[in-house]
Amino acid sequence: MKALVYGGPGTREWKDVPKPVIEDPADAVVRVTAVTICGTDLHILKGDVPEVEPGRVLGHEAVGVVEEVGSSVTGLKPGDRVLISCITTCGRCSYCRTGSYGQCLGGGGWILGHTVDGVQAEYVRVPFADTSTHLLPPDVSDTAAVVLADILPTAYEVGVLNGTVKPADTVVVVGAGPIGLAAIQTAQLYSPGHVVAVDLAASRLEAAKQFGADVTAATAEEAERVVGELTGGLGADVAIEAVGVPDTFELCAKLVRPGGHVANVGVHGRPATLHLENLWIRNVTITTGLVDTVSTPTLLKMVEAGRIDGERFITHRFALGEMAEAYDVFENAGDTGALKVVLQA
Amino acid sequence: MKALVYGGPGTREWKDVPKPVIEDPADAVVRVTAVTICGTDLHILKGDVPEVEPGRVLGHEAVGVVEEVGSSVTGLKPGDRVLISCITTCGRCSYCRTGSYGQCLGGGGWILGHTVDGVQAEYVRVPFADTSTHLLPPDVSDTAAVVLADILPTAYEVGVLNGTVKPADTVVVVGAGPIGLAAIQTAQLYSPGHVVAVDLAASRLEAAKQFGADVTAATAEEAERVVGELTGGLGADVAIEAVGVPDTFELCAKLVRPGGHVANVGVHGRPATLHLENLWIRNVTITTGLVDTVSTPTLLKMVEAGRIDGERFITHRFALGEMAEAYDVFENAGDTGALKVVLQA
Repeated sequence: MKALVYGGPGTREWKDVPKPVIEDPADAVVRVTAVTICGTDLHILKGDVPEVEPGRVLGHEAVGVVEEVGSSVTGLKPGDRVLISCITTCGRCSYCRTGSYGQCLGGGGWILGHTVDGVQAEYVRVPFADTSTHLLPPDVSDTAAVVLADILPTAYEVGVLNGTVKPADTVVVVGAGPIGLAAIQTAQLYSPGHVVAVDLAASRLEAAKQFGADVTAATAEEAERVVGELTGGLGADVAIEAVGVPDTFELCAKLVRPGGHVANVGVHGRPATLHLENLWIRNVTITTGLVDTVSTPTLLKMVEAGRIDGERFITHRFALGEMAEAYDVFENAGDTGALKVVLQA
Repeated sequence: MKALVYGGPGTREWKDVPKPVIEDPADAVVRVTAVTICGTDLHILKGDVPEVEPGRVLGHEAVGVVEEVGSSVTGLKPGDRVLISCITTCGRCSYCRTGSYGQCLGGGGWILGHTVDGVQAEYVRVPFADTSTHLLPPDVSDTAAVVLADILPTAYEVGVLNGTVKPADTVVVVGAGPIGLAAIQTAQLYSPGHVVAVDLAASRLEAAKQFGADVTAATAEEAERVVGELTGGLGADVAIEAVGVPDTFELCAKLVRPGGHVANVGVHGRPATLHLENLWIRNVTITTGLVDTVSTPTLLKMVEAGRIDGERFITHRFALGEMAEAYDVFENAGDTGALKVVLQA
């Protein structure tokens, strides 16, 4: 079969690899019908996630049809259409038993396209398949569902819930890529007063407005000014970091009010400076996180009910075999205006 | 009257200053009967808190007797014995109305010995006296009460409550000075499984055991080893920073488990490095904070009930006029073994 293989920093290739097989009784093999590319894949290609080894099939966001299940799988059968969660869940370790699936100690967590072969392929082996997939209702399309694999639960759990967005809050989202847009969209479930989107790209600020931001800022200075104006100079109640570089994290720490929350969602490759000489006295809460995907059933219901439009993130569509072209378009999002690119088989 | 006056970094003097008077109808003037010195005062003297201007009377932890009240004060009268909270509370601003007194926008917050003259003096003017003092029950002594002005609520709110200490948690407290010891003591209100005290000084580790730590570590390496042993290599559920330098903050970020909490209590004068390249994926929550003193009534009841021994922190006692000697002893705690030094009039 064909798959997108990481060759080390800067290198990727769509090439022939062996088709995966059941290795453990809890596995399923799934034929991929819709798959997307994540900003995290670009971080991997930049070398920001050094535990990804050359030769790894990338990708952790897909929908597919179950091809084969291991002997202990009870909730899935061949032919079932499933969302493959970006987080694999053993269901048995101390973290999984408290819903902290992202920190699974039993061989799960974020493993697909990270420490085991991922979903940017014609077929994928899904470990702990019963607890790591979600059966899809017939009226939710593959392309509406694929954004539930990672970006919607990540933005919601790691941004909105960790940031404790509440009614009337002023929420600033720094970075209006797919994760930032998903944060803007899911923040509205908690009825904020204002959502401020910050991004350098005018096209992304335009998208941010469509996803629900009522104020935009194109520079750090403008962000400080508009947040100040909205809050009587106090700062934002919640600042969501959705980029993954030190400057944007530090901007969030500047934009937040005393007593506010900075929710880091970005994938970082370098340390940031934490200005404790200012922050120690300001009662600021900073959270980091990998998604647990505990919210996926909730978000799937919202998509099914038509309250969240998953398709809205998708700007470019490709056939699965056009993986190289899809990466080119996603990597050059500044020029192509790409949000999510979806490949379908 | 005499007072301890800050003269700029490194300089302090016990000298004659004008006796304070009522300046606002909400003020009280209190005759100080017991006062102590805080690690924060030493941070001020190091220059870590640059907004403190030369000429400022220091100190924010005291007990006294009301001498005179302004015309709008209704809950206090001359002769009342009161705890002066380190946090002054206007009671009317958006922060005070939600219990975030430390961030008061109405002229309160931490002002005593910071932006207005403090309590290391024979008399002090207490703004917003109704909401910034606590009447003391007769069976709580001045010296048992004085630790309720700052260190007990600070360690409890900013360390234990922000850190969300829960039953069975492994809690590591880095720094076993008065604040660290108060965190060790108040952490036990939530029945942790283990409390690990980390300090370079053997005398402080000995004190930590008396305050309830069951494990101690004298170096960062030893702390990493013992916390690893207690937690199956995962890390502490809660790490409380009670020193105020980058190294100890960064040690806390290393010692905490995925999904755990770092509660910063220390007063910092310099930025720290936040290793987001490791932390982004670990679901860590970091809190900073100035105390709100919302817990003072609770802690006062615990002292009154004999469940918390305020006197236990006090290692050295002086007459009020011996302020210079008391500072010498407290500044050289490594040699003198000082925890809290109390001066009484």
